[in-house]
Amino acid sequence: MSILIKGVLLNDAVTDVYIEKKEIKQIGTDLQVQADQVIDGKRKALIPGMVNAHTHAAMTLFRGFGDDMPLMPWLEQKIWPNEAKLTREDVYWGAKLACLEMIKSGTTTFFDMYHKFEATADAVEEMGLRTLLSGACFDHFKPELAERSKRENERLIAETDKYSERIQYSVGPHAIYTVSGELLQWIHGFAAEHSVPIHLHLAETEGEVQDSVKQFGLTPVRYLHKLGLLSPRLIIAHGLYIDDDEISMLADHGVKVVHNPASNMKLASGIQFKFSEMRKAGVTVALGTDGCSSSNNLDMIEAMKLASLLGKAWRKDPEAVPAGEIFQAATEAGASAIGLKAGRIAEGYLADLCLVDLHIPAFTPNHNFISNLVYAANGSCVDTVICNGKILMQDKKVPGEDEIMEQTARLAYKLVGKA
Amino acid sequence: MSILIKGVLLNDAVTDVYIEKKEIKQIGTDLQVQADQVIDGKRKALIPGMVNAHTHAAMTLFRGFGDDMPLMPWLEQKIWPNEAKLTREDVYWGAKLACLEMIKSGTTTFFDMYHKFEATADAVEEMGLRTLLSGACFDHFKPELAERSKRENERLIAETDKYSERIQYSVGPHAIYTVSGELLQWIHGFAAEHSVPIHLHLAETEGEVQDSVKQFGLTPVRYLHKLGLLSPRLIIAHGLYIDDDEISMLADHGVKVVHNPASNMKLASGIQFKFSEMRKAGVTVALGTDGCSSSNNLDMIEAMKLASLLGKAWRKDPEAVPAGEIFQAATEAGASAIGLKAGRIAEGYLADLCLVDLHIPAFTPNHNFISNLVYAANGSCVDTVICNGKILMQDKKVPGEDEIMEQTARLAYKLVGKA
Repeated sequence: MSILIKGVLLNDAVTDVYIEKKEIKQIGTDLQVQADQVIDGKRKALIPGMVNAHTHAAMTLFRGFGDDMPLMPWLEQKIWPNEAKLTREDVYWGAKLACLEMIKSGTTTFFDMYHKFEATADAVEEMGLRTLLSGACFDHFKPELAERSKRENERLIAETDKYSERIQYSVGPHAIYTVSGELLQWIHGFAAEHSVPIHLHLAETEGEVQDSVKQFGLTPVRYLHKLGLLSPRLIIAHGLYIDDDEISMLADHGVKVVHNPASNMKLASGIQFKFSEMRKAGVTVALGTDGCSSSNNLDMIEAMKLASLLGKAWRKDPEAVPAGEIFQAATEAGASAIGLKAGRIAEGYLADLCLVDLHIPAFTPNHNFISNLVYAANGSCVDTVICNGKILMQDKKVPGEDEIMEQTARLAYKLVGKA
Repeated sequence: MSILIKGVLLNDAVTDVYIEKKEIKQIGTDLQVQADQVIDGKRKALIPGMVNAHTHAAMTLFRGFGDDMPLMPWLEQKIWPNEAKLTREDVYWGAKLACLEMIKSGTTTFFDMYHKFEATADAVEEMGLRTLLSGACFDHFKPELAERSKRENERLIAETDKYSERIQYSVGPHAIYTVSGELLQWIHGFAAEHSVPIHLHLAETEGEVQDSVKQFGLTPVRYLHKLGLLSPRLIIAHGLYIDDDEISMLADHGVKVVHNPASNMKLASGIQFKFSEMRKAGVTVALGTDGCSSSNNLDMIEAMKLASLLGKAWRKDPEAVPAGEIFQAATEAGASAIGLKAGRIAEGYLADLCLVDLHIPAFTPNHNFISNLVYAANGSCVDTVICNGKILMQDKKVPGEDEIMEQTARLAYKLVGKA
């Protein structure tokens, strides 16, 4: 299987890109190669597929279901009672809708954290993206639940072998207020033994920090440090309340951080994410949307704009979080966080790519492509998506999209008792 | 000329809407009327056309030209030298591109402030939207420039009669730091005499407030009050730095305020826009994008999400600026600010309407339409646009859009010396 993209805009020059199997094989002008499929790149730009580094895919089912509410009533009245009813079929279709939405807006890899691992894995397998899929892990400080979580993750990591290389396993301890120190330490050992990442919510709210200090006598990052959890395998989502010394600790241990601006703003968790300080200290900072019940979409182009604008706004500095840096966070940083040779367009890299339609107002005029992509465009500019050398979308159409939307809506209404 | 929209979603019910000439004539189930054009509303929702209450249309020419820069170098190196070169043809095409972008994202009325009034008026006339177009007005505290501005606005208000009712004139004093008190008072009298609005930048930055106190001994709103400028005809753009007493003053005098979240964030002007306090005090608060060199698009659906998320974030209150309120600001409030019987879907109102495509992931599932519109969608969900009873876009295509994009890009590159 090979693809030749003819005459596409790449870093301000028009070029050809030849893909063989799952890799970018050759980049150059007027490539003389035979390919199974040829894509006309005219009036299109090529970008790496984006990496949505924190989401809860199946929560598309709850999109718009309980907005403008305080956190606890929202969880207690809207989310938890309905999540408790979720079947494997619900999660499968919810995850398919999430995959559809991500493909349509240019994401080729996402880091997920949810229940019913296999349902999401099946959805991703069919839809053709890549995922770092977390085995959910929490014990609410009860030893019997800790044991159950350990056995479940041992089962899931074995399960992952059945899937293609596009499905990568990680352990997903929910948060330090739902997972005991003992289970966190077991997770650390388990992840090291199997060389897999750990995906954890951390330092998302002021309340979490206050509780951590009260319960453990330490702020969240210091608490993890004491437990020995800080390592290059650790990926923390949010990391909003982190001081300068903690940034150094994260940098020293190679911990990765995922910024989720839409969720942080909408849930009013906080705004002062230290993007620049973390990058300067050498921390890999990726970007995510969070789940659809807090973000409320999975559009990484929108997430880039939000992150950049919010970073400028709270610092009162229009030069902060420039377009190029946030684009790097949304692509290369996410890929490198899990050791994926993707997020860049270069020979030998994985063919995870998007063609962007330049013939729309957002790219007119096109004085600066990255500026237009981040500040003027949104996910609807994505025309073609390739992942692992296969075309997932062409001309803005994903095969089977009608059925996915119809099925998911039907299940979502049934779930909340509307149908 | 009549249009029948069959079976469209409106406020959670499926209904028909019949338009005759420029008005909504009848709303009901299974209307038995003959219409010149019939639009199938299946899988679509009907919303009022949005009102972008502050922009500088022709600045689409400078989209992405100098981002991530501090204000003064950006103005001095990028914007001012190139604005000085603008021809009438440049402004005409820049405004046409802006109109195209607004139609495509569901805006039917915009309040504009720029040079070369007639060029923008010609563009709007052809494109079919409505505009409140400001005659630029500034004197840099020089009497001879004040006289020139007065004569120019006398000429422009007469000129406006040549255009259709869709082109409405307003006086556009730039700001209190570029327009003398004497000229502001003349403008107030002139606007009262002709019953036209005044469109003014005010209280946008901390620096402006400090300078106002230094130069006039008063904060911007108090300075205007002293000059006698506060009236129901006054529309102020930004209004970021306004204290509680000033809010009361604005309410007492019926002054309208336009919030521009993208511009305020990107230029790092500030974040604490007092949306809720102003509404509570009875101030009409509308929404705008500002010009494309600071926002960097004209997408009012994106502006709604930004305004709501930012409002929740700085207040640390997830219930603040709920979807329904910001939708009202983006529609009805903008229309009522200039006495336009639009921004609502009701019999006797102007037929300024959009059909939104519900068969996309952002509206799947559709637990709450307004929530999905504000938080999940973006301008690309707009399928059909009607203004003044005429169809401006159908199936996401605007007649002549290719030529507009090609011409504007060509002129923009020539302008900045790239072609």
